Amino acid sequence: MALLDEDRLFPAEARTRSLARGLYEEVKALPIVSPHGHTDPRWYAEDEAFPDPARLFVTPDHYVFRMLFSQGISLDALGVPRADGSVGETDGREIWRLFAQNYHLFRGTPSRLWLDHSFQEVFGLDVPLSAKTADEYYEHIDACLKKPEFRPRALFERFNIEAIATTESPLDDLRWHHMIRQSGWSGKVVTAYRPDAVVDPEFEGFAANVVRFGELTGCDTESWEGYLEAHRRRRAFFKEYGATSTDHGHATARTENLSAQEAARLFAKALVGECTPEEADAFRGHMLTEMARMSLEDGLVMQIHPGAFRNHSTGMMVRHGRDKGFDIPTRTDYVRALKPLLDAVGTEPGLTIIVFTLDETSYARELAPLAGVYPALKLGPAWWFFDSPEGMRRYREMTTETAGFYNTVGFNDDTRAFCSIPARHDVARRVDCAYLATLVAEGRLGLEEAGEVAHDLAYRLAKQAYRL
Amino acid sequence: MALLDEDRLFPAEARTRSLARGLYEEVKALPIVSPHGHTDPRWYAEDEAFPDPARLFVTPDHYVFRMLFSQGISLDALGVPRADGSVGETDGREIWRLFAQNYHLFRGTPSRLWLDHSFQEVFGLDVPLSAKTADEYYEHIDACLKKPEFRPRALFERFNIEAIATTESPLDDLRWHHMIRQSGWSGKVVTAYRPDAVVDPEFEGFAANVVRFGELTGCDTESWEGYLEAHRRRRAFFKEYGATSTDHGHATARTENLSAQEAARLFAKALVGECTPEEADAFRGHMLTEMARMSLEDGLVMQIHPGAFRNHSTGMMVRHGRDKGFDIPTRTDYVRALKPLLDAVGTEPGLTIIVFTLDETSYARELAPLAGVYPALKLGPAWWFFDSPEGMRRYREMTTETAGFYNTVGFNDDTRAFCSIPARHDVARRVDCAYLATLVAEGRLGLEEAGEVAHDLAYRLAKQAYRL
Amino acid sequence: MALLDEDRLFPAEARTRSLARGLYEEVKALPIVSPHGHTDPRWYAEDEAFPDPARLFVTPDHYVFRMLFSQGISLDALGVPRADGSVGETDGREIWRLFAQNYHLFRGTPSRLWLDHSFQEVFGLDVPLSAKTADEYYEHIDACLKKPEFRPRALFERFNIEAIATTESPLDDLRWHHMIRQSGWSGKVVTAYRPDAVVDPEFEGFAANVVRFGELTGCDTESWEGYLEAHRRRRAFFKEYGATSTDHGHATARTENLSAQEAARLFAKALVGECTPEEADAFRGHMLTEMARMSLEDGLVMQIHPGAFRNHSTGMMVRHGRDKGFDIPTRTDYVRALKPLLDAVGTEPGLTIIVFTLDETSYARELAPLAGVYPALKLGPAWWFFDSPEGMRRYREMTTETAGFYNTVGFNDDTRAFCSIPARHDVARRVDCAYLATLVAEGRLGLEEAGEVAHDLAYRLAKQAYRL
Repeated sequence: MALLDEDRLFPAEARTRSLARGLYEEVKALPIVSPHGHTDPRWYAEDEAFPDPARLFVTPDHYVFRMLFSQGISLDALGVPRADGSVGETDGREIWRLFAQNYHLFRGTPSRLWLDHSFQEVFGLDVPLSAKTADEYYEHIDACLKKPEFRPRALFERFNIEAIATTESPLDDLRWHHMIRQSGWSGKVVTAYRPDAVVDPEFEGFAANVVRFGELTGCDTESWEGYLEAHRRRRAFFKEYGATSTDHGHATARTENLSAQEAARLFAKALVGECTPEEADAFRGHMLTEMARMSLEDGLVMQIHPGAFRNHSTGMMVRHGRDKGFDIPTRTDYVRALKPLLDAVGTEPGLTIIVFTLDETSYARELAPLAGVYPALKLGPAWWFFDSPEGMRRYREMTTETAGFYNTVGFNDDTRAFCSIPARHDVARRVDCAYLATLVAEGRLGLEEAGEVAHDLAYRLAKQAYRL
Repeated sequence: MALLDEDRLFPAEARTRSLARGLYEEVKALPIVSPHGHTDPRWYAEDEAFPDPARLFVTPDHYVFRMLFSQGISLDALGVPRADGSVGETDGREIWRLFAQNYHLFRGTPSRLWLDHSFQEVFGLDVPLSAKTADEYYEHIDACLKKPEFRPRALFERFNIEAIATTESPLDDLRWHHMIRQSGWSGKVVTAYRPDAVVDPEFEGFAANVVRFGELTGCDTESWEGYLEAHRRRRAFFKEYGATSTDHGHATARTENLSAQEAARLFAKALVGECTPEEADAFRGHMLTEMARMSLEDGLVMQIHPGAFRNHSTGMMVRHGRDKGFDIPTRTDYVRALKPLLDAVGTEPGLTIIVFTLDETSYARELAPLAGVYPALKLGPAWWFFDSPEGMRRYREMTTETAGFYNTVGFNDDTRAFCSIPARHDVARRVDCAYLATLVAEGRLGLEEAGEVAHDLAYRLAKQAYRL
Repeated sequence: MALLDEDRLFPAEARTRSLARGLYEEVKALPIVSPHGHTDPRWYAEDEAFPDPARLFVTPDHYVFRMLFSQGISLDALGVPRADGSVGETDGREIWRLFAQNYHLFRGTPSRLWLDHSFQEVFGLDVPLSAKTADEYYEHIDACLKKPEFRPRALFERFNIEAIATTESPLDDLRWHHMIRQSGWSGKVVTAYRPDAVVDPEFEGFAANVVRFGELTGCDTESWEGYLEAHRRRRAFFKEYGATSTDHGHATARTENLSAQEAARLFAKALVGECTPEEADAFRGHMLTEMARMSLEDGLVMQIHPGAFRNHSTGMMVRHGRDKGFDIPTRTDYVRALKPLLDAVGTEPGLTIIVFTLDETSYARELAPLAGVYPALKLGPAWWFFDSPEGMRRYREMTTETAGFYNTVGFNDDTRAFCSIPARHDVARRVDCAYLATLVAEGRLGLEEAGEVAHDLAYRLAKQAYRL
C-alpha cells in the first residue's frame, strides 16, 4: 500500500497523462534549487537532530495549526507557544494524537500532499495517518529522527538540494552561515538580504535598529547618505555569505521615487518616530527604488512580496504573537503602485526584480502584461496560499499567454518546513508537466519544446534568474 | 427520449466519469436539507394548488424574466406585476408561449437545467420545450397542478425534504408557520430571523418599523437597551417556530464594534431619520456584531449575504418595483470589513457565522484564508448568480485548498422557485461528486475518503452547521 | 510536416474532441465578419504589396515586439520607429533573424498560434521558424509578398472576408474609403466612428481638433449645441462610408448624464483648457450618454473599450511614443460606472451598446449580470490580452451561465496585423466549439442546439449585433 498515487496531479485523460508522465520522468530527479525560503541556517550549522514528530510537523507549521484552530482546537492544545514564551501542551505525543484524529480536515489541501509525501518518502510510512495509527506514526518518526541519516545535513543531501537560500535581517550577524562555511561541509546554503527591520519606519524598534545598523557597518546611519552607505556595505557583507538576492515584504506594492531631499526628510522623521502612516508608506515605497538602484550596482536580484494583512486577529496577536496563521491576503494593485520604480529602473536589462502576489486577479490583468514588456520585471511563482496544485495551474493559465514562460523564474518553496521541500518541488514539477502536457495534447506546443520548457521550469530558470 | 442526460455534469473522461457516477449513486437519494431559502410558508400552511404554469415558472422567477427582458421582451408581456400592482398580460397561456418561443435564450444557463429537471422529473415531460410544444406543455402542467399530488405538501414529501427554512422579518407574525404547526402536518418548515427592516436606518419606514417592533415585543424600542432587548425576545419567538438561524443582507460586508454609547447615539439619530449615509452604514455594521453576540447567547447561526447593488435601474424600480432582476453583484472586501466582528467574536468556537459572496475573487484571496483560521467563520455555498455548475466548480477549486471541506456548510438552494428545489440540490450533488472524482482520478484524495466527503457535502454539513 | 496540429485547441478527451471537431467542421469555412479592427484602409485602397517580412510581422506588431523587449532586446534593434520618426535597425533581414532566434519566447502564447497559422496557411511554410530557418523563411515570404496574389485585396478575398470595419477619427477625411468605393472593387470595407480626439478634453490638441471638426461639418463647434450637431453630421458622413458603429476608448467605464447646462459649462472649460482632471473625466463620461442618444436616432451600434492604462512607461513614451506595447490593463468597475448611461438609455430595446473589458474579474460579477438584464447592453468578446485560447475559454465559462450566448456578439479580431485575421477567427471558432463540445459531453446542451450556437457565435451574431 502507498500513501501517494504514482500519477498524482497528472490529468485524468489517458493520452495527456502519458505525456505528462513522460515529461515528468525527465525532470523529477533534477537537483533542487531553492532560491527563496525560511529554513533555519542553524540547522545546517549545528546539524543536530530535529525534535519529536509534533515539533517537526505540527507546532511550527502555520498551514497545519491554522486549519486545526479553524475547527475549534486551541493553539495551546497544539503546543504553539504563547506571546510570553510559555507553552500549553508540552507532550509531543498528545499533540500528535490530536493532529492525527483530525487529519481528515486536510482532505483536498496541499498540506495533505506535503505531509503524505514526507511520511512516505522521508520516513518510509505506508499506512494512512489516523487516530488509530497515531502512536505507530509517532514512534516510527521519533525513532528515525534519532538516527544520523535524519540529521539536517544528511537530509539536505538526500533531498538532492543543489543550493538553498535562507533569509536574514541586516542586523543578523550571519553566525550560522559563518559556522557552515567554517565546517567545511559542501552543502550550498546562502543568505538573502531582508531589510524590513531597517527600512520600515513602522517596524518594531526601527530607530534602535538603525542605530545598530550603523554600529554593524561603521556608517553614520543618522544621516541619509550614511544610511544608504550602510545598506551598500551590509549588502556586500551578505554577498560574502553567498547572497544573490534581497527580499521585501511590504503590505502593498507601492513604490516611490522621491528626490534625495524629500527622502532624507522622511528618513529624519522616521528616526524620531514622527512619520505619519502615509509618510511611512511613502518611505517604504521609496526604499524599494533605492534597493533597486543598489541592485543595479551590486547585482543582487530583488524580490517583492506584497499584499499580506499581517496578524489579522488582535486577540490572537496579544495571546500568541506574530506569524500564527492570521496573515490574510488582500487585493493588491500593481499598475500604479510599481510605476515609480519601473519608470526609474524598469527598462534596465541588467536588473532583475521578481514580483510575487497574493491576489491572483492581478496575474492576467496586471502582472503578466507588466512582466511581458519591462525587461527588469519577472514573475515569481504562485505563492503561499497559492503554492498548491490549483494555484499553480491557475498561475500558468493566467500568465503564460501574455508573459510566456521566460518571464517567470521557476519554483520557490518559500518554506520553513524542511521535510516538505522535496514534496513542494515535486508538486511544482508535476503541475507544470501536467500543464505542458495539456498544451501538447491540445496542439498548442510541440512535445520536444515542452520537454525543454519542463527542464527550464524545474531547474534552469531558478538558477538563471537568481544567479545561483 | 429524455430532457436530461443521466450523466449530466459529470466529467467527460471515462474513468473520472465512472468515479463521479459511483460517488453520486451513494448520495443522490439522500433527503434534502434546505437551511436557507425564500419559499412562501403560506404554501405549506394552506396547501392550495399552485396557479397556472406561467405563474409557476415565469412570472415569479427573476432568473427567467430577466433573461427574456434582456432580449427586448417587456415585463408587462410576461405578466410581471407593476409597482402599482397592475399587471400587463394576464393570460397565462400567452405568457407561456412567449417563454417557449424564446427558450433557446437559456442554452448553457442553470435556469435551463432547473427547468428541464422540473419538466421531466416533476411533470414527467419528455419532449423539449419550444414554440411547437408550448401548448402541449401548458396543458399538461396545468392539468397536473390541479391534482392533489401536485399540492405543496405532496411535492414537499415527494421531493424528500427533511427540513426547509423560510425567511421572515421580525415584524412578521409567523401566522403561516403557526398554521403549519396547528395543522399537525409532519413536514419540517422552520423560519429564519431576517431583521433588515429594523436594523437598516435606510430601510423604508425604519422608524415606524421600530415602533411596531416595540409593540410586538413589549419593549421600549425608543431606547437602545430596549431595542436590543426587543431583538432578544423576537429571536426567542422565532426559535419557537424552529428558527436556527438569522440572515443579514447588507450592501457591503462592513462590520463595526462600537461602544454602547456610540451605538445608542447612532440609533437615536436613525430613529429621527438624521443618520448620514456613513452613519447608517456604521450602524448596520455594528448591528452585525450585536447579532453575533446574541447568537453566542441563544445559539442561532448567523448568515451574512453582502454585496448586491439592489434595484440598479432607476426607471425599472419606478415602473416595476423591487426584486425585478436588477440586483447586480459588486466587488466586496472582507479582510478589513469583517475585522471588527472577528475581533469581537471570531475565535469563539461555539459560534457559527456563515459568509456568502457575490464576488468570486474573494474566495481564494480572502474568504478561504479567513474561514481557514477563524473558528466562528464558515463559507456559505456558491450563491445566486454562482449557484450554477461553473460557479460551484470554481467555488470548490478556489476554497478547498485553503479552507478544506469542513469549513464549508453544504448546499443552500436559496430559492422561491419551489419546483426547482430538487433540481438545484441535484446539480450541487453532481458538481461536488464531479469535483471529488477529479481529486480521486488525479491522485489527490482516496476513493473511500471521497465517498465520505460526498455524503458530508450533500447532507451532513448542512444539518450540522445549521443545527437542523 | 506541419506547423499546426489539425485538432489544435480541441479538448484532449476523445469523445469531447470528436464532438468539437464535428461542430468545427460546420463553421470553419464560414465567411469572416470582422466588425471591429484597426487594419489600414489605405491597403485596400491602393492595393500595393506589403513590405518585407520583418515589416509585416515584427515591426508593427506590439504583441511581438513587447515580448522581445521584455527579454532585453531593444526596440531599435527591431526597427520600431522612435518618437522623432527615426529608426534604428533598417535591415529587414537582420530584424527577422533576431526575431527568429528568439522565437522560443512565444511558446504558449497566442502570438505563436497566429504566426504559425500565417506561416503555414498564408505562406505555405512547413518547417518551424528558428535561427536555422530564419533566412529560408525571410526569402520565401519576401518572394511571396512580391506576387500579385499576396496583395491586400487578393488576400482579403482569399481570407473569405465578407465585411471588415476599420476605425477612423471624425477628423479623418475618409479618403481611402472613398478611393475604395471609387475603385469598383467589391470588397466590403466600412469605417467606424471613433471620436476620442474631439470628445476627450485631455486628448492632444483637443481645442484645435474641435475647431477643425467645425470646419469639416460646417457647424459652430464653439457652442455646445453646434458641437453636438457636428457629431450628428459627421456620424451621418461616416454612415455614407458604411459605418454601422462608433467606438470609445476611455481610461475607465465612467458615464454621466449631466444637464445640458452643466455639459455646456464643462465643454466651454474644455475648449479653453481649463477642465480639472475630474471635470475632463465627467465630460468624457457624459459624451458616452450623448453618443448613445445619437445612436438611438441614427442606429449606429456603440462600442465601449475601457480600462487600459496607456503608455505606462514614461521613458519609453519619450523615446518611442504611443502604442509601443506599454498599455496595461487596470481594474475596472462597471456597476456604478455604467449606471448613468443605463438609467438614460439602458432599457431601449432598439439600442445596442457593446461593452468590452480588460478586467476579467468583472465578467461573472458585473458584466454578465448587467448584460443579462439590460436590453441595450451586449458583451463584446474577450479582448486584447484575453483574445487567446485561455481568455476565450474563461470568457465563456464566466459569462454564459448568467448572460447566455445571445447577449454576446460573436468575435472581433481587433487587429492591425492583416495576416493574423484568419488565424484569430479560426482560434475563436475552435475555442467556442471546444466549449460547446464540453457542454454537450457533460449533458448540458443538446448536440443539435450546440451546432446552431456554433454557427451563431462564428457568424450570425456579429452580423446581427453590428447590423452588417
